[in-house]
Amino acid sequence: MVDENLKSQIAFLIAIDRMKTIERQSPIYSGERRENDAEHSWHIAVMAMVLRDYAAEPFDMGRVLEMLAVHDLVEIYAGDTFAYDTVGNADKAARESASADRLYAMLPEAQGQYYRALWEEFDAMETAESRYAASLDRLQPLLSNWLNQGGTWRDHHVKPEQVYRRMEPLKTGAPKLWDLADHIIRASIERGYISQNT
Amino acid sequence: MVDENLKSQIAFLIAIDRMKTIERQSPIYSGERRENDAEHSWHIAVMAMVLRDYAAEPFDMGRVLEMLAVHDLVEIYAGDTFAYDTVGNADKAARESASADRLYAMLPEAQGQYYRALWEEFDAMETAESRYAASLDRLQPLLSNWLNQGGTWRDHHVKPEQVYRRMEPLKTGAPKLWDLADHIIRASIERGYISQNT
Repeated sequence: MVDENLKSQIAFLIAIDRMKTIERQSPIYSGERRENDAEHSWHIAVMAMVLRDYAAEPFDMGRVLEMLAVHDLVEIYAGDTFAYDTVGNADKAARESASADRLYAMLPEAQGQYYRALWEEFDAMETAESRYAASLDRLQPLLSNWLNQGGTWRDHHVKPEQVYRRMEPLKTGAPKLWDLADHIIRASIERGYISQNT
Repeated sequence: MVDENLKSQIAFLIAIDRMKTIERQSPIYSGERRENDAEHSWHIAVMAMVLRDYAAEPFDMGRVLEMLAVHDLVEIYAGDTFAYDTVGNADKAARESASADRLYAMLPEAQGQYYRALWEEFDAMETAESRYAASLDRLQPLLSNWLNQGGTWRDHHVKPEQVYRRMEPLKTGAPKLWDLADHIIRASIERGYISQNT
């Protein structure tokens, strides 16, 4: 009665429930606890919708929303790698690629390839959609750190040049949001949320 | 430097972070805790993507994903109303409409109207997009209850006819997924997850 494709798709949709238990470094905006990958993925989708007019180039909203919904799925088997963790980032690509192999093998082949390609497109930042999508992925935790008196920047002694490097995609993806980010970073340095000397 | 529209949009995006703290009745699939609105909204977005071939009618994916991302935002001020709570559902429309007034007033006018209209479209289930979107919104907690030996059905003594009524949108939105739901409901009755006599 239930065909093989549907069975495998439902198994995949059950497996990804685990995104709700993968903690990121960033806290939710109120600061009471760390947020998880599912929450983060939803939040940046609404950001992409509400801030659409600030994208640098025309883009396909459906494609951006699909990309944002799956961009962190590889963390199901690879775990979250903190953006400013040099050691963790050294083997991130290999760990995430192995995770993608395992994850997307659960889906009918063409569909698995489609979502894997969308994740690779996100990471490469070579299309209008991925540059805009990456901009939201950077802006969302920046707001979290701002609202939490430095948040993960302070906890992990992140330096100004590291924050600026991390926010690079905003320059080409959404210049007006880059101005906002720059404004927040400067204010954060002023308040000691980000410091050269810690 | 930062214009008024952008300021109000950022304030809105900060306010909706609260979705991460609004608990639904349904547990996450592992059963360890209840899930929140942000997690639920993300999960049904991926469901809409992966199960796209089962929609009854052609639909615009971007529109469905936008709709699913905002469909529960009114719960920020109105709270989650359990689907099978007769008392709570009596004044649900009024509470949610007041919440929408408050929430969407935060955005630039045209944008606020656009997202409010999208939420109203979702609720009315009169378009291909909203019928398909509602199908996923029903299927996601059904799987949760199935995986949790009855979950909220058992906790709240929900009867078979109530579950069948709740799953109605699947019949027109995604008939093949309706067959799956029917299959799961029958098996749940057999196992005592749903009972006429409790």
